[in-house]
Formats: sequence, structure tokens, C-alpha cells
Amino acid sequence: MMIVMKIGATKKQILEVVQGIEQIGYEAKISKGAQRSIILVHGNIGYIDEAYFNKFSGIRDIIHISRRLRLVYKENMGGSNTIVDIGEGIKFNEDYSQIIAGPCSIESRDMALETADFLSSRGVRIMRGGVFKPRTSPYSFQGLKEKGLEFLSEAAKKYKMKTVSEAVDEYSLSLLSEVVDVIQIGARNMQNYSLLKKCGTINKPVLLKRGFTASIEDVYISLEYILSEGNQNVIVCERGIRVFEGTKQRSIIDFLGVSDFKDECHLPMIIDTSHATRDRKKVQSLSRAAIIYGCDGLMIEVHPDPDKALSDGPQSLSFGDFDLLLIELKNLSKFAKKPLKLYGTQKK
Amino acid sequence: MMIVMKIGATKKQILEVVQGIEQIGYEAKISKGAQRSIILVHGNIGYIDEAYFNKFSGIRDIIHISRRLRLVYKENMGGSNTIVDIGEGIKFNEDYSQIIAGPCSIESRDMALETADFLSSRGVRIMRGGVFKPRTSPYSFQGLKEKGLEFLSEAAKKYKMKTVSEAVDEYSLSLLSEVVDVIQIGARNMQNYSLLKKCGTINKPVLLKRGFTASIEDVYISLEYILSEGNQNVIVCERGIRVFEGTKQRSIIDFLGVSDFKDECHLPMIIDTSHATRDRKKVQSLSRAAIIYGCDGLMIEVHPDPDKALSDGPQSLSFGDFDLLLIELKNLSKFAKKPLKLYGTQKK
Amino acid sequence: MMIVMKIGATKKQILEVVQGIEQIGYEAKISKGAQRSIILVHGNIGYIDEAYFNKFSGIRDIIHISRRLRLVYKENMGGSNTIVDIGEGIKFNEDYSQIIAGPCSIESRDMALETADFLSSRGVRIMRGGVFKPRTSPYSFQGLKEKGLEFLSEAAKKYKMKTVSEAVDEYSLSLLSEVVDVIQIGARNMQNYSLLKKCGTINKPVLLKRGFTASIEDVYISLEYILSEGNQNVIVCERGIRVFEGTKQRSIIDFLGVSDFKDECHLPMIIDTSHATRDRKKVQSLSRAAIIYGCDGLMIEVHPDPDKALSDGPQSLSFGDFDLLLIELKNLSKFAKKPLKLYGTQKK
Amino acid sequence: MMIVMKIGATKKQILEVVQGIEQIGYEAKISKGAQRSIILVHGNIGYIDEAYFNKFSGIRDIIHISRRLRLVYKENMGGSNTIVDIGEGIKFNEDYSQIIAGPCSIESRDMALETADFLSSRGVRIMRGGVFKPRTSPYSFQGLKEKGLEFLSEAAKKYKMKTVSEAVDEYSLSLLSEVVDVIQIGARNMQNYSLLKKCGTINKPVLLKRGFTASIEDVYISLEYILSEGNQNVIVCERGIRVFEGTKQRSIIDFLGVSDFKDECHLPMIIDTSHATRDRKKVQSLSRAAIIYGCDGLMIEVHPDPDKALSDGPQSLSFGDFDLLLIELKNLSKFAKKPLKLYGTQKK
Repeated sequence: MMIVMKIGATKKQILEVVQGIEQIGYEAKISKGAQRSIILVHGNIGYIDEAYFNKFSGIRDIIHISRRLRLVYKENMGGSNTIVDIGEGIKFNEDYSQIIAGPCSIESRDMALETADFLSSRGVRIMRGGVFKPRTSPYSFQGLKEKGLEFLSEAAKKYKMKTVSEAVDEYSLSLLSEVVDVIQIGARNMQNYSLLKKCGTINKPVLLKRGFTASIEDVYISLEYILSEGNQNVIVCERGIRVFEGTKQRSIIDFLGVSDFKDECHLPMIIDTSHATRDRKKVQSLSRAAIIYGCDGLMIEVHPDPDKALSDGPQSLSFGDFDLLLIELKNLSKFAKKPLKLYGTQKK
Repeated sequence: MMIVMKIGATKKQILEVVQGIEQIGYEAKISKGAQRSIILVHGNIGYIDEAYFNKFSGIRDIIHISRRLRLVYKENMGGSNTIVDIGEGIKFNEDYSQIIAGPCSIESRDMALETADFLSSRGVRIMRGGVFKPRTSPYSFQGLKEKGLEFLSEAAKKYKMKTVSEAVDEYSLSLLSEVVDVIQIGARNMQNYSLLKKCGTINKPVLLKRGFTASIEDVYISLEYILSEGNQNVIVCERGIRVFEGTKQRSIIDFLGVSDFKDECHLPMIIDTSHATRDRKKVQSLSRAAIIYGCDGLMIEVHPDPDKALSDGPQSLSFGDFDLLLIELKNLSKFAKKPLKLYGTQKK
Repeated sequence: MMIVMKIGATKKQILEVVQGIEQIGYEAKISKGAQRSIILVHGNIGYIDEAYFNKFSGIRDIIHISRRLRLVYKENMGGSNTIVDIGEGIKFNEDYSQIIAGPCSIESRDMALETADFLSSRGVRIMRGGVFKPRTSPYSFQGLKEKGLEFLSEAAKKYKMKTVSEAVDEYSLSLLSEVVDVIQIGARNMQNYSLLKKCGTINKPVLLKRGFTASIEDVYISLEYILSEGNQNVIVCERGIRVFEGTKQRSIIDFLGVSDFKDECHLPMIIDTSHATRDRKKVQSLSRAAIIYGCDGLMIEVHPDPDKALSDGPQSLSFGDFDLLLIELKNLSKFAKKPLKLYGTQKK
Repeated sequence: MMIVMKIGATKKQILEVVQGIEQIGYEAKISKGAQRSIILVHGNIGYIDEAYFNKFSGIRDIIHISRRLRLVYKENMGGSNTIVDIGEGIKFNEDYSQIIAGPCSIESRDMALETADFLSSRGVRIMRGGVFKPRTSPYSFQGLKEKGLEFLSEAAKKYKMKTVSEAVDEYSLSLLSEVVDVIQIGARNMQNYSLLKKCGTINKPVLLKRGFTASIEDVYISLEYILSEGNQNVIVCERGIRVFEGTKQRSIIDFLGVSDFKDECHLPMIIDTSHATRDRKKVQSLSRAAIIYGCDGLMIEVHPDPDKALSDGPQSLSFGDFDLLLIELKNLSKFAKKPLKLYGTQKK
């Protein structure tokens, strides 16, 4: 059983319902979104008569659920989308599209500062920057770790940016939770349910990347692991899926999958246009197509000197490339269902 | 060995080279594009000294080839793209994007006329309309065949439209070659090499659909079967590829595949946005994304009354839907690398 | 509507039912198996009261069908399997497993005779040998065509073997139908519905290869195209399906697909173990696994001198390799659900 | 650079090489197999002259490596296979095939004991039993955790069995490392590099399951993460890969992938025949095929009462089913390249 509270239900109302559930011998778990709370009733093997809840106020809906996925479906959440607020009113799942940009990895203090300076001057408020990197070889650069996190944090503070960085295990998760604004879970850890559960208990939004061979149903299962632990602030990110085209080093952005996801699930979905290809020109083309196709945001790799990048150089845009793309995206924005949201320049 | 003639090489020059080849005991096969001719030397098991050809004029390049694909690669064709002219100056592979629209199947004389009337009034000059239909059940409507061809032809003539229709075997190929402007080979017959060879000998442009599980390399092999028989006027059409998402009835448009194809091959590639999904709204979104991503044309199913269509109803646009889409595409066109080409209304 | 006749129903009984159907304004199409006939009622848009058929004898079952697949399902055929007799009592779908062997292509008269001599001396009665070859390059050897067919036919006659050879279009189909015992349709033509329909009208068993990216459902649709035209003598052949492992030149034998197919469909399914890999040693391992997994037959490429083969050399077994494999298969046979069927040596 | 020590090189010899490496300013990391040690030289950005190592004894080979995979390839390991000894002489990668059996999850003390009693009486010495379970719904049974581990451990001790159980995070890994003999990493965590690295530092063999959409190359990368941390005792497990057959709940055992892996990598590879299908009968057929195809072991789910199993019931064999299968496997074993290894019954 699942109790969907009204938007604006008070803490007191929620608490009363929780106590009511506990009084009849069950466990209550609260899952909190920016607007609405859901109370999951755990442990009810039998049927609970919903009349019992008549005496409580603030309840919108009571749903008897048996299927394995409960919290991912929009229809179970009163039909409305969950707006994910990552801080200072920067929101996902509104009528506009956010942009997240930055380097694959933070490589030095200077490059972090330089990139944040550049991006913020262009109205970008969310900066990505890996510090723990799962790479395709254990001998490749694995990120600057704690040091990198410091650099990212300093740069973000100076230029008033929100930050996204990837957690790869409990240790990095707890470290990042203290510092960054959005915790990214990478494609390779999309089915690391243990880590996902931990993401469900933190007080930060999560950006979950769809695995490159994960079906939309697989994504739902992973989401349910986060949501069922109490965190509804999840942004999902499509980054291209693997096909039978093994000879080319590319994956395919599943635009229709984004639509299907948005039809069924209440969470925002953004598109990472950098990872499907290893070619800057194509990143630009895909970004343009994505904003016109319609999505809740773009994620793009930008680097001060892509040819010297320690990771993902071939697909990273230079500042110049990014500027050109931004002009194109602004032009297209007028005709997009969800226009690109850019912010005023943040003074240092 | 392959001899690439200069653009503008005369018939006489070509003939002389052919005779030169035959004099030294080999067979020559001419492959003709709109601008350039290629002469394939068949039967040369040993190496031919290219100095032999010094005495001939009109030759741009002599290429010693051993790999299995020769005529598909742009680099073998002097690096330039092949412009496919389907008649009256309606061309593919120029700096604009063509639009092909019309019903999945021609269902009656009235609907053919009504659709042609509507489309031509919107500036569309190329009409699709199936008359031989390979369906997913032998018990489904298989097309009006000869009768349908008559209707399509009458409508096209009246409204001055070029026509595209699918051949499924030798019989339909020879019938259609007499009447339509472009012969379509469907996804299911993409590897029907016997039919492809026959397409190589006809005097009409061919529109080859990529099979929904064909790699780009597979497409090249199929193209080579057409090109090596002497017909260079081929338009390729991406229509979505099958992925592991078996539970949803959808395929994924391989936008990056279009770019890869265009990088390597000299032929035009268009995108059919109707077949990847069974949902009109998504056809519109995909069409918008495709024009912005960049391609040589769009192929869209339009039907006077989609809910009553005998085939492909769910993904067919009504006239009203198409009008709305056209407005959006025109707006976007300004920002597209290849803007949409629309023609003046053709008076009846 | 579909009328399943009893096993042993007489021609007269069948004729009476056909006439009965025509009398009430519908068309009847007979689909004939080795044991049982099915009469399809075409043109019945409305419901026909089955009481009407009470007066006829020889009827086992009347099935009202609306779904797009009718004749492929075992449950529609009285639950029993269709035994395909390719002549002289050589049958598929019995309690044993047949073996088909021979070269990819017939390359000369001598090699045809030599191979037939060898195979027949080992108790193999069915010889494969391509004469029309769809290759992955139009410049590769495409088969000896009419001449090759002559050689195959002469060898088969001399050594009393049944023959399997591939048709690629109407012309080759009509030629082969006169001469060989089983018409093969290759993986690339699996969805060439026009050719499949023609296979439905010939009086020879058909061996349909599953396309390397075809789902079992796709195979059913293709089968229905043959069956619905009146030919129930179809053998299906699994040959490996394409996966995401693009870097290796291999496909994967879908053993579970064979079981699923056999659970649902009444036709025999064999396994071609030569095409999944380009490595003889692995062909042997797969053949051993296949006989133990259980299937209605094996198809194996054998060549007098594989290293000089004009096609498929790397995966062809030499006579010596084949002998070793045969010993292993005979040993395993005792423990196989369907042991390998070998015949006495045929004296010349 | 990588230094391959001779089989039988002494601790002293190894230590001397390590010190020699450190003396010239690099870091040495030892990777230990049952027979052979490898010393990885970390930090050598430039080239080290191998003449420097002439003074050390016990060295077999010095390999200059730059590619991203070093330790997975057999050719880098002196061409020989790594034998993985899980204790008491129970080894993988010898000339026989091991069998691992047991329930998906340990559900109670009684069932653990009952299963161990049964299996050991049949000569099976390795028991699987999940206690931390990543399931396709967070609301499904997630394993008995610490309690289950106690039951598994008690049963194993009583019946002298080796145990395999899955770790899903650091916590479970450290817990299991103390108690079980082989740590399993499940398909969903195959690319959880952080966990894999930790597996590289423990003193227990690891059983790594191939993800159901992982290429063999992906498996190599994951292995390299374990091996490069110093643990060479890894057994890899093929369990079926996902194909485009979305409508059926099945995956496909990649037999050829097993061969390719064994050709290139020095580690043992076993086949889990239970997870590809949800049908006991097919588990039996696949197991028979697998032993005949050839592999280093089978992993099979066995449950005292499959119809009441809390997880994976449909594909679990009952004791009776398992007995039947064992008889068949024993019969086939005579003809298998790697016959099934069964042990004498262990007295309680």
C-alpha cells in the first residue's frame, strides 16, 4: 500500500499518517519530492482496509500496489511530474531545458577555475566535473579524487555554480554528498543496487545515467531502488545505447526512449550528447537535434584544451566550439517545446 | 581496376576507354552518375599497368582496387557527392533537404487524388504510395497492385508530382520502372541481391531502405550490388533500427549512422521518421529533430483519414497534422544545415 | 476460418469440403502436409457458423482464427508435428536427427562427384551444394549457376543422394524446382515475401534459413507466407544470430530459440553449425553440442580441399575432419534425444 | 613493463626483483596466481632497459606493454592457463569440468543443510547459495544476509563443501571474504570497478559473471581491474546474453564466446545454464550441451522444493531433476573434452 499525500500536506499531517500506520503494526517509509510526499507501507502482507485512513487529513490517494514497480510511474504519483530542485531555484522538469557543461574530469585547479569562469560567463549554472573516474582501463587516469573535489568546489563557489560529479562507491558517495549539488551515478553502476539504495538515503539530487545496454524497464527498476529508500529527486540521463554496429565506436541516442520514459515516469530526463560519439562535430549536431526533439536538459563535455584532455578529449568541445553551439541552441530555442534555460552572468 | 572519368567527359571519350579495355582482353562496365562516369574493369586477375591508359583523354583517376567494396566510397569517386536527379530538376544531395510524403498504400483513386491535391498545394513535389506491400501477415492487405499503380500515376500526372513506390520482385520492378520516378526497395528486401542487381540495370533512381537490423557496412554491400551493375542514382533511407527493447514496438533512428554514411559514401541519405514509432506525435518530434540534425530528405506518411488507413494508420499524419509539422519545419529550416526544399504550388 | 482434416482424409472428402466452402461464397485454399491437409477459408469477413460443416466427413477440427499467424502454430494443427518427407523415405521431424553435408558452392564437376562419393560412403544421404550464391561482395564468386546445377545433379544421381540448393529469385527457383530435392532460401532472403509465396506454390520441400537478425516471430511470419500458399513441407534452419559483439566475426547459435520454436511450431528445425564461426574446430564443437542439445538435423559444410575453397573455406571441414566429427557424433548419438540418422552406404 | 616469473620462483627471488624495481624509482605490484607470479612495474612513463634485470634469477619473461589490457591475455602469461585452486585441491582450469550447485538463495537453516546433504551425497563439492541478493524489484526478497551466511557456512562445514556466494558491496564483500571460499560478483555489478578493485585485494578466488550485455572485451576490462590489484584467482562465468528477442524472457548462452575467451585469456570459464531460461527442462538440455561443447565448469540452481523457492523457482532443479541430469552428464562425460569431475561422497 502506498499513500500519496496532497501537494502542500504539512509535516504534521505526514507524521500523523506515519503514526497511524505504525499503530496497526506496519512500517512507514516516507519518500519526499520537492512538492509531494509519498508514504510507503512496508510489511503489509495482507490487505489493509483503506477506510482506516479516513480520519487523517492531507491524503490525496491510497494505492494498493502489488507490482514490483511502484514509485516510478506517473500514474501512481497523481499524474504530475516531479520537479527536481538542485538549489537556488535551479530546477529540472519545468517547461524549459537545463544545460550542464564541463570537463569529463577535473585535471587541475586552474582548469577548473578557467572552465567555471567561461561557463558562468555564458549563463551556464551547472558544471559537471569528474573526480572519481571509472575508465576502460585500470591503467588510465582515474581522476584526481579528493584533490579534484576541492578544485571543483572552489571553482563552483567562486562562480556561483551548481556541481555534478560521479560517485562510484560508498566512500566517494559520502564524500561527494557533502560537497557537490548533484550526485551522478554512471552507466556502469546503473545496476549497482547497493549503491543506488544508498543514493536513496542521501539528501541530494541524483543524476542516474542509463546504462548503454539497459532497457527503459531496467532504468525503472534502478530508479525504484533509489525512490523506495526515500529520495525522489532523481534526474535520469540518456547517453546512447549500444547496438550491433560493433565496428564503429559509437552508440545511438534513443530519442524515442526519452519520450516513452516521459510518458510513463514523473521524473526529468536529460540527454548527454557527448558520449554517443567520439567526434565534436557530431556532438554539436546531436545537441541541436536533442533540444528540438525535446528533453529536460543537455549534458555536454567542455574542456579548455580538448586535445590535451586526460579523458574524453575527442568528444569534448573547446570554449570556441561551445560558444558556436550555444548560439545555435539559442536560435533553435524559440522553436523548441522546452527552450534552453540560460542564466544571467554571475559576477565574481 | 576502376577508371574514374572527369566530370563532363564525353561519350566518345568513355567509349574509347571501353574499347581500350576490351582490346587488352578485359570486360568494361560503365556505371553512370548524373555528373560522372566510372568504368569498372572486370576480369583483370593480374595487375594492369596504368601507363597503358595515358593515351586516353577524359580520365580523372585510375584506382587499383582489391577490396570488396569499390563504388560506394566517396574517396574512390573523386571525393565528391553524387547528385541524384529524379526528374525536372528535383535533386537529392544538394544543399537542401527534400520531402517525400504520401500514404503507406494507395487505397483508392479518390484517396490518391485527394492526397496529391493536398500535398502539391503545400509545395511537396514527391509523393510516396505503396501498391505492392510486404506486410507482417500474408492475410493483411497486400496493396492494390496494378490498379493502385494506375491511381498513383493518374494523381501524380494531374498534380505534377514525382512518385516513389516499392518493388518487391522482378515483376513489380518492371511494372513500376515504366511508371514511377523512383523505385523503392524495402527494408525486408535490402539483402535481396538478385533484385538489387536488377535495380542496377534500370534507368530509374532507386530508394534503398536500410534494413532494421542492417549495419552501415551491410548497406554498403547492398549498394555495391546496385552500383556495380551500372546505376549510380541511389538514395538511401534510414528508418530506424531494432534494438534490445523488445517489449516496446519501436526502433531507433540512427542519426549518427547517417553522419557516418555521409562521411564515407557519395550518395544521398534521407530519414523516414514514420516507421520508427507507431505514434503520430513522435513522428512529428522525430521529423523536427531530423531536419535539424541534418539529412538529405525526410519521408513521412500522410493519409486523408489515418484512423481508417488499411496499413500504418497509427503513424500516419492527417492533413492537419502535416500542416502543423510543415510550419514547424519551415521555421526550423532557417537554422538547418540543409533547409527544407518546398516548391511553388503546382496549378492543376 | 480454417478446417483441419483428419490424418488420412481422402481426396474426395477434401474436395467435398472445398466445394462446400465455395457454395457459400468463399474461396478455399488447400495446404497439404505429408500426413494432413488443412483447408483455409479465404474471404470470410464475417463469421461462418461451423454447424454448416456437420454434413462433411473427414474433418478433425474447425478453427476460427483472426490472428495474423494461423498455420505455423502446432496447436492449430491438431497438436502434432508435420513430418517432411524429401523423398525415398528420408524424413525430417521424426525421432532422429538428419545430417546434410556438402560444399558451400559446387566448384567443378570433379569436386561434386568426389564429395558425393565421400559423403555417401559415410552414410550421408543429403548433399548441399550452392550454385546460385549471394555473397558479401558482388565481385566475389557468385556460383556456377546452370552448369553447377548439372554437376550437382549428376553427382547426386550417381551416388543416390538427395540435394539441397539455394534459390535467390524466381528464375533460380524455377530451375532448381525441376532438379533438386529441397529448395533452400537463404538468410538474406528470409523476408523476401514475394519469393516465399512462390515457394508456397511449388511441389518441393523448402529449407528456410532464419535471418541472422530475425526473431522467432519474424520466422513465423515468413513461414506463414509459404504455408498459406499451400506448401507445408518446410524445414527451418537456425544458423546463428548477430549480437552486439561486432569486433569478432561471429554469430551465436540460439539453442533456446530452437526449443521455443519446437514448442510452438509443428515444423522441423535443424541447425547449421558452419556459419556461426569461421573456424573448423569450433564447427566441430558446436555440432557436438547441437546433437546433444537436440534438433531435427545438422547442416555442415564439407569440402575436398577447404583451403582452396572459393567460398566459406575457413569454416568448411575436410573429409578427414568430417570423419572425426562423425565418429564423435555417433558416440554421442546414444545419449541424444534425437540420435543421428545415418544410412547404409549406397553402392555406385 | 611486466615481469613474468618462472613457475616455482621463490619468494626470495620475487622480493629481489621487487626491490630492484624500487631501487630505480618505480613501484612494483605483485599479482599472484596458484603457480606463477607476475610483477607489474607501475609508474614507468619512459622505457626501462630490460638488461637491468639480467642480474635477477627466477624471471621467465619481460614484457613491455602499453596497451590497456595486460594481465588478461594468455600470451602475456607465458602462454599457459592459470589454475584456480579454491581449497583442498578443488581446482578450475584443469582437464576436467567442475560442478557448482545449490539454491539461488539460502532461505533457511534447514534448506541449507538439506541441500548440502543431498549435493555432497552426489559427489558435488561446491555449493552456491545467495545471501545478499540484487533482485529485479526492491520489494522482492533480498536475501537472509548475515543470518543466511551463517546457515550456508554451517551446512558447508558439516558436509565438507566449498561455498560460493555473491558480494554486492564493500560490506558484504568483507563479510563474505571471511567465510566463503569463492566470492561471486553478479552480472549487474560486472562493471562496478570500485568493487572489482576491492576483489583484487582479497585473498579469495573470485567468480565474475559476465553481464548479460557485456562483450568479451568488456569482460577483459573488468578482469584487468581485479588482476591488476594482485588477485589472479578469478573464474569467469557465462550466463547468457541479451538479444533482440525482447518478447521472450530469455537470453542466449554464448558458446562461441567461451571458446574465444579460452583462446585468448588464461583464466577458467564456466557456464551457468540456469539463468538463460526460466524452464527446468531447458536447463537440462543446455547443461548437456555445455558439457559436450566444453567448458571449465557448470553452475546449476538446485532447490529442495523449487515451486516454493523465494527466488528463481522456475529455473531451479528439484533433487530428482538434478539426479536425472547427473546421470546424463556422467554418461556424456566419457565423450567430453573436459569430463565432469565428481568427488567421493563426503561422510558426515
